[in-house]
Amino acid sequence: MKSPLSIESLQNPKVKDMIRLKEKSRARTQSSSFIIEGQRELGLAIDAGYEVLSWYVQPHICKEQQQEAVRAKLEVQGNYLAPTHISQAVFEKIAQRGSTEGVIAVVKAKNHQLDQLIIKRKNPLVLVAEAPEKPGNIGALLRTADAANLDALIIANPKSDLYNPNIVRSSVGAVFSVPVAMGSSSEVLRFLEKLQANVYAAALQASCPYTEIDFSGPTALVVGTEATGLDALWLEASNQNIRIPMRGAIDSMNVSVAAGILIFEALRQRSIL
Amino acid sequence: MKSPLSIESLQNPKVKDMIRLKEKSRARTQSSSFIIEGQRELGLAIDAGYEVLSWYVQPHICKEQQQEAVRAKLEVQGNYLAPTHISQAVFEKIAQRGSTEGVIAVVKAKNHQLDQLIIKRKNPLVLVAEAPEKPGNIGALLRTADAANLDALIIANPKSDLYNPNIVRSSVGAVFSVPVAMGSSSEVLRFLEKLQANVYAAALQASCPYTEIDFSGPTALVVGTEATGLDALWLEASNQNIRIPMRGAIDSMNVSVAAGILIFEALRQRSIL
Repeated sequence: MKSPLSIESLQNPKVKDMIRLKEKSRARTQSSSFIIEGQRELGLAIDAGYEVLSWYVQPHICKEQQQEAVRAKLEVQGNYLAPTHISQAVFEKIAQRGSTEGVIAVVKAKNHQLDQLIIKRKNPLVLVAEAPEKPGNIGALLRTADAANLDALIIANPKSDLYNPNIVRSSVGAVFSVPVAMGSSSEVLRFLEKLQANVYAAALQASCPYTEIDFSGPTALVVGTEATGLDALWLEASNQNIRIPMRGAIDSMNVSVAAGILIFEALRQRSIL
Repeated sequence: MKSPLSIESLQNPKVKDMIRLKEKSRARTQSSSFIIEGQRELGLAIDAGYEVLSWYVQPHICKEQQQEAVRAKLEVQGNYLAPTHISQAVFEKIAQRGSTEGVIAVVKAKNHQLDQLIIKRKNPLVLVAEAPEKPGNIGALLRTADAANLDALIIANPKSDLYNPNIVRSSVGAVFSVPVAMGSSSEVLRFLEKLQANVYAAALQASCPYTEIDFSGPTALVVGTEATGLDALWLEASNQNIRIPMRGAIDSMNVSVAAGILIFEALRQRSIL
């Protein structure tokens, strides 16, 4: 076996490229690539068909056996890339989480345009989130979408790129397993029309409690931001606005909690829990 | 009207005290006091009976009319404290959110011991969260508890003090409106026994889907941490373990989303949505 390539210097151009990919949305968009940290997350991405462009291990943290596990997954894809070794200092410079398993990869982004989104089920359940901002909320939405096995999470009027390291991390890898598409709100609406989905917008105006709705047909649940709610376009296009009745002193709820409540009520009605 | 006191210097001992209260859990615990920022949050705290020990305004941000609104709320409590003016530099040094309304108060902490928790309703619904760690998750749990008008949120084996500024902020004030108690898991369990509540622990072992449970009686829903789940004590004491069926690639969900799904299913069954 050849002795692996090794990077020791923080000034190495590959290290600088990775730091840019981690920190700059523009660098990710221009290169159509991003950084994945951690063996579990990388495994989920490979399982979901993401193409690994290069990968790096800190051999004192990521032992031979763990490297073999990654290598085996890559080989299933027909990818025979060997890892580059990196020093502890380089690893710490690039890694966001000191305690991860000593594996970092540069991975090709997928195309998340709506025209690439294929909905297979006849009776789909999709979640639309308009302009979500906090990476932690987007991560939680992705985890819920994964747990519910939604047909898609559609982000309307996205405020950030999907491969922001804080989104990747807070999604614990669901960003790879969930079918995600993005577009302007009007594009998303046209997509839902073609899908013949019933659109239920979470908005107070002329709304019903969500428990009164029959979610058994093709369904799009639409949630807006906590600060400004949904664009007027959604209120016009909605088949019915829905609300989660608020019984407390404060009339607001975390957006990912609200989405979870709506999604799991739809699943309950569909008798698939 | 007397000209108000004014603090211009970052070296003023009151400023230093406030920064300690913001940054140090020990300072909050020792003094039984903490910092509230923002007019809305402060109003919710006063409405909930919190005692304001001192309050500070940056008069260029917090205009006379807004000051009067706070003053009026305080007077309802019989509190006639005048605000101290602070300079913009002092405000920025203490405030966590640059954009808040120029009001900061030092407020007396409440006692959150279990023996102080009074459950009034005959058929209570309480949420127990064991050892939650992330302030954002605790804030979201509090918001959900407020929205659902739970009888209490009980934090078992707490990992942080409740008045951590990140919890106060992410709760958007629900930390004041929700009855919160804390204690060791065994203390909490004794409390629930006295309450004669059915204990449903969110845990996989020997569990039912949560939708198969009748939540119409006195109910305690118990959720653990995402990393380690619940202490064995809960699994032994649970009337029935419950699970939210996971249908995706990743068998986990954000703890506050999971709690929201369980709580609102209980409300739905109780026909109070």
